[in-house]
Amino acid sequence: MSNRTLNVGVIGCGRIGRIHAENLATRIPGARLVATADVTSNSAKEVAAQFHVGKATGEYRELLADASIDAVAICSSTDTHARIIQEAAAAGKHIFCEKPIDYDLERIRAALAAVDKAGVKFQIGFNRRFDPSFAKVHELVASGAVGQPHVIRITSRDPAPPPLEYVKVSGGIFLDMTIHDFDMVRFLSGSEAEEVYAIGDALVDPAIRDAGDVDTAIVTMRLKNGALATIDNSRKAVYGYDQRIEVFGSKGSASAGNRTPDAHVLTDTAGVHEAKPLHFFLERYAEAYVVEMRAFVHAVLKNQTPLVTGMDGLQPVVMGLAATRSLREGRPVKLSEIA
Amino acid sequence: MSNRTLNVGVIGCGRIGRIHAENLATRIPGARLVATADVTSNSAKEVAAQFHVGKATGEYRELLADASIDAVAICSSTDTHARIIQEAAAAGKHIFCEKPIDYDLERIRAALAAVDKAGVKFQIGFNRRFDPSFAKVHELVASGAVGQPHVIRITSRDPAPPPLEYVKVSGGIFLDMTIHDFDMVRFLSGSEAEEVYAIGDALVDPAIRDAGDVDTAIVTMRLKNGALATIDNSRKAVYGYDQRIEVFGSKGSASAGNRTPDAHVLTDTAGVHEAKPLHFFLERYAEAYVVEMRAFVHAVLKNQTPLVTGMDGLQPVVMGLAATRSLREGRPVKLSEIA
Amino acid sequence: MSNRTLNVGVIGCGRIGRIHAENLATRIPGARLVATADVTSNSAKEVAAQFHVGKATGEYRELLADASIDAVAICSSTDTHARIIQEAAAAGKHIFCEKPIDYDLERIRAALAAVDKAGVKFQIGFNRRFDPSFAKVHELVASGAVGQPHVIRITSRDPAPPPLEYVKVSGGIFLDMTIHDFDMVRFLSGSEAEEVYAIGDALVDPAIRDAGDVDTAIVTMRLKNGALATIDNSRKAVYGYDQRIEVFGSKGSASAGNRTPDAHVLTDTAGVHEAKPLHFFLERYAEAYVVEMRAFVHAVLKNQTPLVTGMDGLQPVVMGLAATRSLREGRPVKLSEIA
Amino acid sequence: MSNRTLNVGVIGCGRIGRIHAENLATRIPGARLVATADVTSNSAKEVAAQFHVGKATGEYRELLADASIDAVAICSSTDTHARIIQEAAAAGKHIFCEKPIDYDLERIRAALAAVDKAGVKFQIGFNRRFDPSFAKVHELVASGAVGQPHVIRITSRDPAPPPLEYVKVSGGIFLDMTIHDFDMVRFLSGSEAEEVYAIGDALVDPAIRDAGDVDTAIVTMRLKNGALATIDNSRKAVYGYDQRIEVFGSKGSASAGNRTPDAHVLTDTAGVHEAKPLHFFLERYAEAYVVEMRAFVHAVLKNQTPLVTGMDGLQPVVMGLAATRSLREGRPVKLSEIA
Repeated sequence: MSNRTLNVGVIGCGRIGRIHAENLATRIPGARLVATADVTSNSAKEVAAQFHVGKATGEYRELLADASIDAVAICSSTDTHARIIQEAAAAGKHIFCEKPIDYDLERIRAALAAVDKAGVKFQIGFNRRFDPSFAKVHELVASGAVGQPHVIRITSRDPAPPPLEYVKVSGGIFLDMTIHDFDMVRFLSGSEAEEVYAIGDALVDPAIRDAGDVDTAIVTMRLKNGALATIDNSRKAVYGYDQRIEVFGSKGSASAGNRTPDAHVLTDTAGVHEAKPLHFFLERYAEAYVVEMRAFVHAVLKNQTPLVTGMDGLQPVVMGLAATRSLREGRPVKLSEIA
Repeated sequence: MSNRTLNVGVIGCGRIGRIHAENLATRIPGARLVATADVTSNSAKEVAAQFHVGKATGEYRELLADASIDAVAICSSTDTHARIIQEAAAAGKHIFCEKPIDYDLERIRAALAAVDKAGVKFQIGFNRRFDPSFAKVHELVASGAVGQPHVIRITSRDPAPPPLEYVKVSGGIFLDMTIHDFDMVRFLSGSEAEEVYAIGDALVDPAIRDAGDVDTAIVTMRLKNGALATIDNSRKAVYGYDQRIEVFGSKGSASAGNRTPDAHVLTDTAGVHEAKPLHFFLERYAEAYVVEMRAFVHAVLKNQTPLVTGMDGLQPVVMGLAATRSLREGRPVKLSEIA
Repeated sequence: MSNRTLNVGVIGCGRIGRIHAENLATRIPGARLVATADVTSNSAKEVAAQFHVGKATGEYRELLADASIDAVAICSSTDTHARIIQEAAAAGKHIFCEKPIDYDLERIRAALAAVDKAGVKFQIGFNRRFDPSFAKVHELVASGAVGQPHVIRITSRDPAPPPLEYVKVSGGIFLDMTIHDFDMVRFLSGSEAEEVYAIGDALVDPAIRDAGDVDTAIVTMRLKNGALATIDNSRKAVYGYDQRIEVFGSKGSASAGNRTPDAHVLTDTAGVHEAKPLHFFLERYAEAYVVEMRAFVHAVLKNQTPLVTGMDGLQPVVMGLAATRSLREGRPVKLSEIA
Repeated sequence: MSNRTLNVGVIGCGRIGRIHAENLATRIPGARLVATADVTSNSAKEVAAQFHVGKATGEYRELLADASIDAVAICSSTDTHARIIQEAAAAGKHIFCEKPIDYDLERIRAALAAVDKAGVKFQIGFNRRFDPSFAKVHELVASGAVGQPHVIRITSRDPAPPPLEYVKVSGGIFLDMTIHDFDMVRFLSGSEAEEVYAIGDALVDPAIRDAGDVDTAIVTMRLKNGALATIDNSRKAVYGYDQRIEVFGSKGSASAGNRTPDAHVLTDTAGVHEAKPLHFFLERYAEAYVVEMRAFVHAVLKNQTPLVTGMDGLQPVVMGLAATRSLREGRPVKLSEIA
């Protein structure tokens, strides 16, 4: 497939779907956005019009039935992912799927089995792996520059909690938010987790406790390669999106902090002042979304294994389920306890 | 014109022309790239094909004659700018023109007179004004946060000299390279220069001296508002593009440094290591090119005066000529000495 | 006592004792170093000679019996602290004591009871509280600048493990090393811990495991005020002493990183390079040692409660014992479980 | 002399004299402060009492006549330096002298001739050379890490102007303030200046203009080794002492910025905030004052040439005189024009 353009359809035209649509239409060499689908067909049409796309529909199955479409980007609501993956795989479409595949391990495994059976390419949307700073830290660790990893530290804070209605169906902070950090621990350490322990509370908003969730949490882990990890999360950093990682090892430390909208420095009688971090994921990971889609398109066109696989989609869910159980039961939980 | 889309043609499809073409095609709300022209008509066609543009030609006058085209972006070689400006103005096209307008003050004035007479919008491509960091420093100065400006400091270094053949026809370092810094002094200080003094030498490559130019220079200035300015330039910073500004005033200092491709930090037995600056202007000012074109399109659609005017195109050339004379004659030169 | 000089004797003239001796002799207004004692009387004499001190002895009881001595700084080996405190208190001497008081809670309580009974001033040597950066973070938190604390993050790494012989008698990493971080959690949060959980391993040197200890650890905590805390420790950061803290709260974040021996920046084709952190505690906390002793002298002369009290000496030992038990038993341990 | 202690007397017990007295008394291995002198004998006595020094006098000649004194630190007012140097040299005392030697080239030459004739060690107090950051930049340049120097950039700003009465007798900004920067240019570049050009104005306080001086200035230079230099000065940076240097060369750039009293970072809804630079020279160069005196004592005890020589005391005065003439005459001035 390497000498031609990949025709991609986007399924789900909400916030993240629009980003992928725009990137596919304008920033991904080798790809062409050829169709959009959304249960709200007007959304699909709006996006299609913006990017000069011929096909827009309220029914994603039309994309799966269209032989001219090579691949789909699944950006619909989480509860539809597993089903659409199975159908798309059966239709022979290569699949880029937003995270998570699902919160249910059985459904995830069924979806991945369908992918395997069909032999189509599958990439899960852990966008942070493609952030230039995080990718560089990964590269430094993989190159041996920090030696054997001993400690992984991750800070991950959102600027504001999602709506309460969303919190109630989100699967909880560990499956909705920390899942990205679980993926980052695996990505950076090159190891699976052995055991997870979580503490947390609703310090931002008591209504989140009433909804059965926490908004502030710390998760620690023992990894199979011996390294230890700690993640701290908050649903609300008033200064914006706070995304920092560090890998400390036998030869040194590699870390990456936040990026800012500009590099100004104001020095006055009150101190030295700089810009806050980029506000949220749309700003911080704008480049990562482009790079991850380029990587997907490249993998398909070159017939290579995508950089983020189905297993990468499954394991963080296992970790999230273990953290959830740990918090509930007040004890460390081994990943082997999770079915 | 505020309710419709601005149809823009790009004249000159070299490196910078392609950037503006891509931005107009994909990142500028309210604009549509409708035609390309280049003396090498294949270049025009190549760009047109990439961005689904219907019209591509080897003859820019076809664009000027096309009534459906509202504005042109002039990205051809410098020696053609003044003539095309005059013709485009006469054809009633709004004009975005890459810097400089020309190196000859008479030709600049004639071009600007044509623009005035035609009443079309005109913006000169001093892209650095739209860099988020530099724009923020300008905003801080304009807001009074640093008080009355006392000292402007600019460091501006390229990663490598241009080809010698280009050096010979470039007009010299002050007109080719420092011109951006002259614009920045005016932009940041809000003042014209009174007197200029320059020192320089060919420290990077003796062949540049043989070509009658210098590759390393320091220019100092007295401004009409009393502030003092210093600019240091080099044609070769081995670590990449080095672009830093500072405004020091009665209430403090506002500065902006370089941006990096990523925010990693590696700490090992040898020290603490971070990424080099973004390599050159295409990387560093990628966002600035988008923002400046948005500003141009916005000014035309809203019938406002563009943020960078014809006078902004003229004055840095006067400063460059004064610096050139200062270097040759070994004395400070008043701007009033330049015709 | 406010109008006269405090006569201080130093008991124990090892590495830390010499620092306090030098500071008392040269940098503490209101104090005079008047005597030194060390079981190796030559050490006492050497220090005395260096700082023009008249009295040097192999027997600390001579200092306690000397009516001209107002206060003692106890810098002898940990196993002697509790006894000397009791004797010094009985002798009416004000007491500055290096951390920890002891590893046995009964002996600590007995020592503190003696202090209380005698009514002398007592300050425990948690020097990091007086580090200008950490003190500033504390001040910002106390002032409300970060709002209600939600997460405390501490990274604390030594440049190299202590000798194995020391490891064997050190009480373990949590009582020997993390104890400073436990104090910092209390200092920054203004709260006691409720429950502690620890993971750890010997990743630096297997001989440390053979000695019954770990060299790499992560401790998490729930605090009584609701905040969560995480500490990560390593006995060996090849790049030097790594001491960083962060308090994240409802209104923002206050943090402090390492200090460097100089502020140089080298930029070359390989990247941007800066100095490593100050190598170890003698360099990093040089200023803190001066400030803490000034604070002690000030508290005595002004008859004020010292800034670091007996309770501040006791609680981190409780936390260290809880962490030690947590690591052994693989479960979170409440502080109330520790006798 | 290497096996014994150097007995030093301090002449002049004002602000800077007290610093050297304290350092000699407490922080300089190999040195002993044995006497103080000041025209106000009470000042001499006060300092002597503070540091347990036996001899204090209103007449510096008593120190020169005291055979037990090996060396003197001349910290009296500038107009007395040349005379005391000559007398001290004649008395066989090694000499540390605060900058400048004098503002008159003849008197400087006479003083240096007396030093040469006597064969005593002489070090001039250009303290900034011993600042750890600046010393590191010098070391990097000297090691070849930045290649051949092309551009030297120095920013040097005081927190507030000196009293007007001082301004009137200071010799002008270039001899009083920029003289340190002139020394730094020579120190960093390893080259003498060829030609100097200066612009300046009284932007901080018109009374400084009335006193015949400027408070804001930019000086540029051609150096004999081909490098170019620019210095910008202000008598008033409201945020404190601003001392930054940069050497840019064929292989990269070495720079050093300000130091801060602490390393805190506060991040809130308004931005990211850090500490201002250390307020003034007493704070910023506290360590440099210790290191320079250690270097002097070391040079005398080891019979080595001091790191800052008489020539290093002379040349910056020549540069200051050239800059003064350049400002007055509005033209570049060659150093060879200065007698």
